[in-house]
This record gives sequence, C-alpha cells and structure tokens, in this order.
Amino acid sequence: MYGGIEAGGTKFVCAVADQSRDIIEKIKIDTTTPEETMRQVIDFFKQYHIKSLGVGSFGPIDINEKSDTFGYILTTPKSGWSQFDFLGYLKEYFDIPMYWTTDVHAAAYGEYMNATDNIKSCLYLTVGTGVGGGLVMDGEIVNGFNHPEMGHIIVKRHDEDNFEGSCPYHGDCLEGLASGSSLEKRLGRKGNTLETEDEVWDLVAYYIAQALVNYTLVVSPERIILGGGVMNQELLIQKIRNQFIELNKLYVTHPAVDNYIQIPRLGSNAGIVGALSLAEKVLLENKI
Amino acid sequence: MYGGIEAGGTKFVCAVADQSRDIIEKIKIDTTTPEETMRQVIDFFKQYHIKSLGVGSFGPIDINEKSDTFGYILTTPKSGWSQFDFLGYLKEYFDIPMYWTTDVHAAAYGEYMNATDNIKSCLYLTVGTGVGGGLVMDGEIVNGFNHPEMGHIIVKRHDEDNFEGSCPYHGDCLEGLASGSSLEKRLGRKGNTLETEDEVWDLVAYYIAQALVNYTLVVSPERIILGGGVMNQELLIQKIRNQFIELNKLYVTHPAVDNYIQIPRLGSNAGIVGALSLAEKVLLENKI
Repeated sequence: MYGGIEAGGTKFVCAVADQSRDIIEKIKIDTTTPEETMRQVIDFFKQYHIKSLGVGSFGPIDINEKSDTFGYILTTPKSGWSQFDFLGYLKEYFDIPMYWTTDVHAAAYGEYMNATDNIKSCLYLTVGTGVGGGLVMDGEIVNGFNHPEMGHIIVKRHDEDNFEGSCPYHGDCLEGLASGSSLEKRLGRKGNTLETEDEVWDLVAYYIAQALVNYTLVVSPERIILGGGVMNQELLIQKIRNQFIELNKLYVTHPAVDNYIQIPRLGSNAGIVGALSLAEKVLLENKI
Repeated sequence: MYGGIEAGGTKFVCAVADQSRDIIEKIKIDTTTPEETMRQVIDFFKQYHIKSLGVGSFGPIDINEKSDTFGYILTTPKSGWSQFDFLGYLKEYFDIPMYWTTDVHAAAYGEYMNATDNIKSCLYLTVGTGVGGGLVMDGEIVNGFNHPEMGHIIVKRHDEDNFEGSCPYHGDCLEGLASGSSLEKRLGRKGNTLETEDEVWDLVAYYIAQALVNYTLVVSPERIILGGGVMNQELLIQKIRNQFIELNKLYVTHPAVDNYIQIPRLGSNAGIVGALSLAEKVLLENKI
C-alpha cells in the first residue's frame, strides 16, 4: 500500500492506495499548526501498512539532498510552518522510502501519469491565491538548484494596464498581475465575484498566455495543465488559448492548442494522485 | 575513436577524439551548399574509424524520432539547407550510432561535462547574430515536443527603449532586442564597433538578465553560460550579473552570481567538445 500527502497552505489531503492505484481512503485536514496538523497525518497513516510515501508540499521547500535543511519547509508566510522539518517529522514515525517534492510538481506528475495519450512531459501551472508550477520532462520531475518558481516570471506589461502588481517581491511579475490575490488588490473584491464579461479577464489571459509562451520556448512540454481557483472562471481557458496563439506568432509549431493547454483531467485530485504515484515511483527505484 | 560535428550557419567544425577525449584532428569548413559542405565532412571522417558521431546543428531541426523528417534541418533562412536530411545523409556513409541535437544543446553539454565542480545542470545561451539556448538537467539534454527556442522569449520593455525590435516573428522578443543583428538594426552599425561605455549595453544587459531570471524561475540550472559574439563586449557579463541581481529582488536564493553566470570555460570549443561527448554518450547507451 502507498501513502500520499498533498500538503496545501489551507488543507492537507492524505490518502492511501493499493497496488492497482485505487484509493482506499482519503481524508482532508485543516492546515493549522504543524503540531496539530501533523498529529492527524500520523494518526491517519498509522492505520495502514504503507510501504512508501509521496509528499507534495506547499513551498518554498528544501529539495537539496545535500543540504542540512533537506525536507524542510523554508521561509513561508504561513504561520508556524517556516523552517518546519516536514520530512524529518514523518521519518520519525515511518521508516520507509519517501518522495519529497512540491505540491505543483506532484500535480504535474499526477496529470502526466494519467494522460490518456502517451506524453513524456507535462507542465502544471496553478493559478490561485498565488501562482506556481511543476514540471515533468521525460518522465522525471525537473529540479535544478531549486524547485521551479515559475509563477514569478517577469512578463511584458499590457499597454492599457496601470496596476502596479501585488507581488511583495517583484510587484508586477506573473503572480503580481494574474493571481487571485492580485485580482482582489486590483479590484477591491474577490475574482470569483466578477462577471465572465469583465475586461480584467482579458488582462489575466494575456499575462498567463505570455508565461505559457515562455515556458514553451524554454522547455516545450507536450502538455500544459492550468489548475487553481482562478481557472474556475468560465471561458478563461479559451481566452488564454487565443492569446497564446496570438503571442506565438506562428513561431513554434506546437500541438493543437485545445490539446496543448488543458484543465486538469484529475480536477482537484491531481496533487494527491501525483503524490501517490510518486510513492510508487520511490519504492520501485529503491528496489532497483 | 569518436567523431563530432558542430554545424553552424557560417562554418562547420568537425573533429575526432580518442577514448581519453583528446582531440586528434579538427577542421573548419565553410557552410556553403549542403552538397559542397557535406562532401568535405564525409571526406574528413572517412580518414578515421569512428565508432559514433555527435552532431550539434544550427536550427530549427527535427528532433522527434517518430517524425518522418527526424534528422532534418527544418525551414531556415540559410539558402539550400531548408528540409535537408542531415542525419540521413550521414547515415548513408557511416552506419554507426549518432547523437542528433542542436548546436546550443551540444555547447551546453560540453560546458556541463567540463565544469570543474560537480554540477548536474547547465544552461548555455549564445548571444550572437541570433540568440539561442541549450539545456542540460540531471545530466540529460532537455527536449519536449521541440528543442528549446529560448532566445525568443517575451521580455518586458525597458521604459526608455522605443526600438521596435528586429525579430521577423515577434518584433521585440529577446532576440529582437539583444542579438547582434538587432544591435545593427537599432544603431545602423555593427555591435562590435560600439564603445564599451555606450548606453545600449545597459539595455542589452537588462534584456538578457531578464531572460536569465525567467530561465532560473522555470528550471533553476546550476550554471548559466553566456557565449556568442555579442558577449565579446567587455564588461557586458558584469552588467548582466548586476541586472540579474537587481531583477531577482532577492527572491530566488541562487548560487553566487560570479559562479552562476559565466562565460564558456571552453571558449569557442564548447560546441565541438560537446558534440564529441555526445558521441561518447550515444555509444555507451547503445552498448547498454
């Protein structure tokens, strides 16, 4: 049996699956303090004999195995969680192989594993309160000295947009211009209270499409998945596709856009399904 | 013995190396017509008993093994070379394993293999007549449905820059604003006739640094190498490093910038050395 954790800033999803990848049980836990939340995580998994665990966590996290703080959540605005030794805590209770990565990498892996066509690469971008992305290339999660932080890429400003942006670091990076929190700052009300016809969606689509063009030019993944709360806005995905075509200027010959840029096949389960698949992966690789 | 070809739009470099990676002979051939140039390539390698061949070619090229035009140079402004079956031509004369990739991927691989520290990833950006990049992550060249075209990423315009850009596709993408040909169009004279103090170098540094910030946010390679003729401008690399730090806003904790952003250790040999290393790689992988 495999265990999976999708550790989000608002809630944790924990699940166990059998060898045929069927989910046996799945629970949601509020993200409060590490002590409270992790106690429930441990209690959940103690009911099962899991052989490995896949963890996709909100970030930033330390993924460098040579680092003293490998397995930690790094500096985060989420109260109580900065410098929390997440992996170390789990290892105290379960002496089993664990795959440690970001929540968005796990979602990318989940979508990659569950695609109905035979893709080898997949980029997953979540556009929610913040913007973040994960990347699978040739079947492997891609990290360099750090995990991706692609939600913060610099974008070209739209001529008619004077909003200064909401990112505390960069101001008008992608997250500063297209995240849910940037919409709230820009408009004084939440994005989900806006009409489909609101012109701001054209701006959001313009910035997200620019990011997708740039990701395509750098790594050309075979599929791009757009998740997160902001993507619940009807018609946004089609606006993004249209802008993507417009900005590409027929330069890169990409897969048909409806196939290339998609919403998650797994819906909100991409992260937890990916975490379970990563548990399977780490066990296989440890056995080899 | 291994063979390597760095196929550039102006000249080809061909070399053979022995098993200790020492180069036995290296020649340069003008890039004229495929018939003329390739005849000399074949004659050169026929003198040796090469066991495998690494080819890094100017692009765009078809790297999709399932494609009917795998191994071809695709549509290129270089007269006579569009739709040339490069790999097929070589295979007619040499029935040996071949590694087929772009010139910039080969350069990235060369720099990765010859780094004195133990890096696993390396991004190589050439800023010359055009701008192009190659990428090695976890020791492997990274391609998706296409090889990277990262020289064409969309950048944010500098407030004081009104130049429309020179890219025939995008206008003011990175290549359209920072390549050698864009400098010539912008100023009416070649970049290598400019003074070090010319203000245009600050603009060039701003756009290149922006691209490097975005590459870092997407894949965070452990090293970024900047090659190509424009980089011969003294002080440009330092201006780029300064702008990189400025644009990052202390967001990503990257390696020390002098170590992170470098000129090629191998100088102008990065491409051919990489091609030879790829010949070695393809032979090893075929043997397994």
